[in-house]
Amino acid sequence: MEGKVNLDQFFYPESVAIFGSFKPGAIAYEILRNVVEGGFEGKLIPVNPRGGSVEAAGRRFEIKTALEEPVDTAIIAVPAKIVPSLVDEIGPLIEGAIVISAGFSEVGNWELERELVERARKHGVRLIGPNCAGVFGVHGKFFGSFEVRVKPGGLALISQSGAFGGAALAMGNEEKVGFSAFVSYGNAADLNESDFLEYFADDENTKVIALYIEGVKDGRRFLKALRYASSKKPVIILKAGKSASGAKAVASHTGSLAGSYEIYRAAFRQAGAIEVEEMEEVFDAAKAFEMYERAGKRVAVITNSGGPGVLATDKIERLGLEIARLDDKTVEALKSFLPPQCSVRNPVDLIADADYDRYKRTIETVCKDENVDSILVICVPPIFIPSGEIAKAVIEAECSKPVVVNFMAGELVGRGVELLEEKGIKNFTTPERAARALRWLSMR
Amino acid sequence: MEGKVNLDQFFYPESVAIFGSFKPGAIAYEILRNVVEGGFEGKLIPVNPRGGSVEAAGRRFEIKTALEEPVDTAIIAVPAKIVPSLVDEIGPLIEGAIVISAGFSEVGNWELERELVERARKHGVRLIGPNCAGVFGVHGKFFGSFEVRVKPGGLALISQSGAFGGAALAMGNEEKVGFSAFVSYGNAADLNESDFLEYFADDENTKVIALYIEGVKDGRRFLKALRYASSKKPVIILKAGKSASGAKAVASHTGSLAGSYEIYRAAFRQAGAIEVEEMEEVFDAAKAFEMYERAGKRVAVITNSGGPGVLATDKIERLGLEIARLDDKTVEALKSFLPPQCSVRNPVDLIADADYDRYKRTIETVCKDENVDSILVICVPPIFIPSGEIAKAVIEAECSKPVVVNFMAGELVGRGVELLEEKGIKNFTTPERAARALRWLSMR
Repeated sequence: MEGKVNLDQFFYPESVAIFGSFKPGAIAYEILRNVVEGGFEGKLIPVNPRGGSVEAAGRRFEIKTALEEPVDTAIIAVPAKIVPSLVDEIGPLIEGAIVISAGFSEVGNWELERELVERARKHGVRLIGPNCAGVFGVHGKFFGSFEVRVKPGGLALISQSGAFGGAALAMGNEEKVGFSAFVSYGNAADLNESDFLEYFADDENTKVIALYIEGVKDGRRFLKALRYASSKKPVIILKAGKSASGAKAVASHTGSLAGSYEIYRAAFRQAGAIEVEEMEEVFDAAKAFEMYERAGKRVAVITNSGGPGVLATDKIERLGLEIARLDDKTVEALKSFLPPQCSVRNPVDLIADADYDRYKRTIETVCKDENVDSILVICVPPIFIPSGEIAKAVIEAECSKPVVVNFMAGELVGRGVELLEEKGIKNFTTPERAARALRWLSMR
Repeated sequence: MEGKVNLDQFFYPESVAIFGSFKPGAIAYEILRNVVEGGFEGKLIPVNPRGGSVEAAGRRFEIKTALEEPVDTAIIAVPAKIVPSLVDEIGPLIEGAIVISAGFSEVGNWELERELVERARKHGVRLIGPNCAGVFGVHGKFFGSFEVRVKPGGLALISQSGAFGGAALAMGNEEKVGFSAFVSYGNAADLNESDFLEYFADDENTKVIALYIEGVKDGRRFLKALRYASSKKPVIILKAGKSASGAKAVASHTGSLAGSYEIYRAAFRQAGAIEVEEMEEVFDAAKAFEMYERAGKRVAVITNSGGPGVLATDKIERLGLEIARLDDKTVEALKSFLPPQCSVRNPVDLIADADYDRYKRTIETVCKDENVDSILVICVPPIFIPSGEIAKAVIEAECSKPVVVNFMAGELVGRGVELLEEKGIKNFTTPERAARALRWLSMR
C-alpha cells in the first residue's frame, strides 16, 4: 500500500452513494443534506434496505434498497458490525469508501477493523476511516461530511481528530480562511496522513496544507511524505500530545502512541514543515500562505498609530525577524512628502491623520527599498478617516513584496477589512498575530 | 502632587462642558454625540465662542459662547496654543480638564505644556492629557471620548497610547469584555498611570485593571502605585518597547524612554502584577479576572472531544500548571455513571455523545475532588447535541471552584456561548487561550 495514490474519487467524485438512516438528525441524513446544500452536481444515491424517500434541502430522493450502479465513492454510516459485509457487497461498484461508523479499533474491536480492510482490499477499494467525520472537496462542491461547510480557498485540512476538524472548519469560517479540502481520517485503517499529504501536494487547488496529528504509525513513510509535500507547498503542523500528560491522553484517546515529541519536532524541521504551537496559529499561518509563498526576514512596519507599531516591532524582533534598516535614499524620499511629525525610520509612523495618499506613497516608497523583504501595514482608523480609504491605499499601492495587514479593530474597521478581503488580502486582528504570520512566511 | 487623588470628577461626573467645534466630524462634536448616545444623565454644556446650536443623537443643545456655571469636568478640543488661556479662564468653574488637543510636548512644545500645567495648578484643576483620547466612566454612563462605546463590566483600561486604547475598546467589544472605565492619558502632563492605578484600585465598579504603557517617568512612584493596586485587584500589564527597535520607536513616538525592559519586568513581578505578552492576552486575562479572583495550579480538563482535550493538556503543562491527579474516589465515582468508552482519568473524555447529564454530573464530581483547583470544560458539539444543552449543564452544575470554558467554534456554538454569556460565563475560543486564562488566575 506504499506510494502515491490518486484520491480524486474522494475529493472530486462524480457520483456518490450514502448508506445509513435518512431520518432527520441521523448521520447519513445530515451528510446527504450537507452534500445537497453544498451544491454537489454529480449523481447522489441514498441507500437503505428499507427504501422509501427522503427530502433534503428541497430536493426529494428515492432511497434505493441496494446499490445497483457504479459510483466513485460510498459514504457509510451504518452500524459497525455490518460495515465489512456491506463493503464486500458493494465492493465491485465503488472505488472508495468513507466509513463514518465508529466501533472499531478505537474501542478495541481490532478484529472487525482488520476484516473491514481485508474486504476492501479484496475489491481494490480504498478506505477513509473508520470512525471519521468524512471529507470535503470544496472546489468540486462536494461536502461529504456532517461538519459545517466552508468557503473555497487554498487550505487543505487533514485532521486525525474528527472533533478537532469540525471545530477547525467552524473556526476557519470565523477567521475568513478559504479551504480546498478537508479530511478526517479517524482510525486510518487504510489511508492515512501520509497518503493525504502526498495527494494534496499535487492537488492544484491546494496552496497550503494543514495537518493535525496526535501520532503516526509509520514514521519513515510519514517523513518521506512530509518532505515531498513540503517541497511542493507549505505544510502547517499542529502536533498534539507534546506534554507528558498530553501523550498519556493520546494513548487513551486513540490507542496510538504520541511518541517522543523531540523526535517529531526534529522530523518536522528536517522535512521543512511549519510547526505551530496553537490552534489559532493554524489559521494565521494558513492565511499568510494563502496569500504569499514566502518572505525574507527583514520587515518594514508602516503604521498610523505609535503604540500598535511598537507592539509589532517588539514581536518581530522577539520572533527572530528583523526590523529592516531603511536605506538613506528611502528615508530622504519619505521626508520629501511626509509631514515633519511623522517618523521616517522603521517603524514608519504616519501619525493619526494619515490618509489614502500618505499610506499609498509610503508603501510604494518602502517597497522599493532593497533592505526590505516584507511590509506590515497597521491601521487604527481615527474617527475622521474611514478604514475603507486606507484599505484602498493598501490595495492600490504598487508593491511586489508581501504585505501583511493589521487593521484594528472590530466595528472600527469593518468596511476596510471587507474591501481587503474582496481582493484576497486577509486581515490579522492584532499586531502580534500579523508579526507571527510574517515569521511563518520567513520559514519557507 | 504625590498621594492618592479622588478622580470622580472624571469618571463619575454630574456636569460636563465640552469646548471645540460642533460641526459633524469635528472632535468636540463626536465627543458630544458619544456622550449623548451613551445615555449620560448629567448636565452637558457645549461651548464655542461663536454660539449657535447643535443637534446630537436627536437632542438639540444651545452652544454657549462661554462657560458661566461650575461643572465637574471640561473636555477641551480647541487648538493647542489657546488651551492654557482657556484653562486659566474657566479654572475657577471646573475641577478637572481632559485635554484632547495635540501639539504639546509630543511635538516638542514643552513650554506650552508647562504653561498649561501651571494654569491648571493655579486653580487646583487636575488635568488628563494633553494629546489624549479622553475617558469613559462606563457605570456612570459617561463616554467622554470619541472612541467606540463599550458594555458595562469590570475592566478599567488605562492606556498611554490613544490609538491602542481605541483599538482595545473595539477589540474588547468583539471579545465580549465588560468595562468599568477607560482612560487615555496622552502626555501625562499632570495625572499619570500611577494616579489612575491608585484610583481604580479603590473604584468599586472595577474588578480588574489593564495597563498599556510604553514608559513611565517616575519609576519609584509607579512601583508604589502598582503594588497598591495589585494588592487590591489584578493588574494586567502590556508593556511596549521591550525590544531594541521597539524601545527606539517609543523614544521617537512619545519622547519618553522605554527604559530597560528587565527593570520593568522585575518591577511588575515584585509588585504582583500580571504581565501579558500580547494584545489578545489582555482580553483573555481580563475575562478570566472578571469571573474569578484566582485559582490554584491543579487543573481538571473535561471534554467531549479527545483532540482539543489533548491540546489543552499540552498547554496547561507547558504553562507550568498541573494536570490534577484525580483522587481514586473521584475515578470510581466517574466510572459508576460514565459509559465504558469514556476516559475517567484527567483529561476526562466524555466522548462525543455526552449530554447535559453527563457533563453536569462529571463537573460536580470532579469539582468535589480535593486535588482539583479549577476546571477547564471543553465542548465541540456533535450535530445531534445542541451547544445550548451543554451550556446549561455548565451553568447549572454545582461547583464552587473556577470553571473556565472553551466551546468551539463559531456558528457551531452560537447558542451555547450566548447562554453562557447571559450568566456571566465567558467563552475562550481555543483550548490554549482557555489554558492561558487559568495560568493568569494562578498568578494571583
